[in-house]
Amino acid sequence: MPIIACERLIEQLTQRLNEKGVSLARARRVAELYTQASADGVHSHGVNFIPAILDWLEQKLIVDPESSPELVSSCGAFERYDGKQGFGSLNAEFCIDRAMTLADVFGVGAVGLRNTGHWGRPGNYGWRAAERGYLAICWTNAWPVLPPWEGATNAIGNNPIVFAVPGPNGQHLVLDMALSQFSVGRLNTYRAEGKTLPVVGGVDRAGRPTTDPAAILEGGHAWPIGFWKGSGMAILLDAFAAILCDGLTTSELANKEEGLGNCQLFIVFNPKIVGAADSAARTHEIVRHLAETNPESRFPGQAALENRKRSAEAGIAVRDDIWACLQLKP
Amino acid sequence: MPIIACERLIEQLTQRLNEKGVSLARARRVAELYTQASADGVHSHGVNFIPAILDWLEQKLIVDPESSPELVSSCGAFERYDGKQGFGSLNAEFCIDRAMTLADVFGVGAVGLRNTGHWGRPGNYGWRAAERGYLAICWTNAWPVLPPWEGATNAIGNNPIVFAVPGPNGQHLVLDMALSQFSVGRLNTYRAEGKTLPVVGGVDRAGRPTTDPAAILEGGHAWPIGFWKGSGMAILLDAFAAILCDGLTTSELANKEEGLGNCQLFIVFNPKIVGAADSAARTHEIVRHLAETNPESRFPGQAALENRKRSAEAGIAVRDDIWACLQLKP
Repeated sequence: MPIIACERLIEQLTQRLNEKGVSLARARRVAELYTQASADGVHSHGVNFIPAILDWLEQKLIVDPESSPELVSSCGAFERYDGKQGFGSLNAEFCIDRAMTLADVFGVGAVGLRNTGHWGRPGNYGWRAAERGYLAICWTNAWPVLPPWEGATNAIGNNPIVFAVPGPNGQHLVLDMALSQFSVGRLNTYRAEGKTLPVVGGVDRAGRPTTDPAAILEGGHAWPIGFWKGSGMAILLDAFAAILCDGLTTSELANKEEGLGNCQLFIVFNPKIVGAADSAARTHEIVRHLAETNPESRFPGQAALENRKRSAEAGIAVRDDIWACLQLKP
Repeated sequence: MPIIACERLIEQLTQRLNEKGVSLARARRVAELYTQASADGVHSHGVNFIPAILDWLEQKLIVDPESSPELVSSCGAFERYDGKQGFGSLNAEFCIDRAMTLADVFGVGAVGLRNTGHWGRPGNYGWRAAERGYLAICWTNAWPVLPPWEGATNAIGNNPIVFAVPGPNGQHLVLDMALSQFSVGRLNTYRAEGKTLPVVGGVDRAGRPTTDPAAILEGGHAWPIGFWKGSGMAILLDAFAAILCDGLTTSELANKEEGLGNCQLFIVFNPKIVGAADSAARTHEIVRHLAETNPESRFPGQAALENRKRSAEAGIAVRDDIWACLQLKP
């Protein structure tokens, strides 16, 4: 795998997106977001995702890469937008920014976005808010890839959710998690490396709990986090998103004839104007206490920061097929 | 175990609290909340919890059962209150009501409450919001009862969280979950019944994963839902609550010399004024689809509704020691 410097990767990716008809400034921003995800160690939602995006642009599943979300309704601290099946990551960035603006006025602000595309790494929008001093929660509904607990037919999404809290010196607390214990990407990686899962990750074809990634992938089912608890959480996050955004549910996403159409919710707090505690100082204290009592434990966001530092110094290892795809001529 | 009709239980409990100095109207409301939790099948946070409350009243850990939360700061759609170590359940009910009032004005409303006591069944406040047509998320931080992932020293709370969405004909979606896979109460029940856990629930004294409830209770550790994921979520929910409420963190709660002092956050949406979809119709569709594809699965809130119906018809089975405690004369 070639090791590519971050800036070089951003440039290459910008050019490739620009060739597909994305304006230079927007192509550059998308390139930065996906490169950042890879730099932070989340390759599945970093540059490895680019072939899918190029494909969606080609197929017009991203209908108009230049479109911005359109305001549908507004009510004080809450705004609702239609993403017009535009660029998912840029739509989501627009909405987290709007939620911050609303939080500046009302203390808390919320934005619902429907009819949007895949938003890339969910954590992007949490990091963005935390870096600007805001606390944020956001999530997306998603395709049915899990059965609800006690069921055997995929009907709930893994509906990723992000919680972000600003910390000191860039050490933000950012939890970015899907509601499946292991994503399909992660299961594939374990299988490719010939490893078993560290904990039971689902059932095999016969419904038996297993740590064998291949058994889950080949006719089995992945499990939600916390079994019945994560199953319930996936149902609730879908209901919240579809209702407040007035958009498609997980099951309707699967039945949609073509195109993308997720619902996403962004909730942001401005701690400074609501008279909250000093976020950086309190976060520092929480992290310090965890490190003191449990030196082996890691705080949410810690791995991303370590990977980020390493990537800035040494570059990013890019899969051969991905690098080849990025260098294709139109 | 005697079977007691709900109204009789409420009356008995009201009287007992009133004897401890709680005014009649407030005693009645507390009695209703704890009886409702038992009626819904959550005995641990229903009448079984009453001896602890009577004890707290006796010891003045509930400092003044007549006090109401005091407004500390207000900023548009966000308000912060001090619970003055008053009655946890009444303080929390006050705050979910305030959040609904804010949501009526701003679309979304949020309330932070610090320095409060145990709020009883977390789901109370989700049911209350859903019954009035609101979507709600609320959570509390809590004492350290779990180690963070990879650690071995209790340092994170099980920080219960509630998501509630109004459905049709009282069939609301209400998820009420602690972030430990099994609560101490649930582990004790499995042990008393001589059963093993349906899934691995933690580690034994030697750090080995186990389904033996006794091994977890006797020197072992319970696990958070989703292992590393629930561990991260507990850290984030604590940070959100402590920062936005300007109150104590999980570790500070444990170090507090005396009294109670949790932080709780209540976030409410009014779907009618933000131009959202018809919540009851959408929820109906989600529940219908789940039942159709996975007839064995149950939606969050379903068990509570079934128990509630049974309790209304047949009364509530109350543990002998609890019933004796409720009938004590001062």
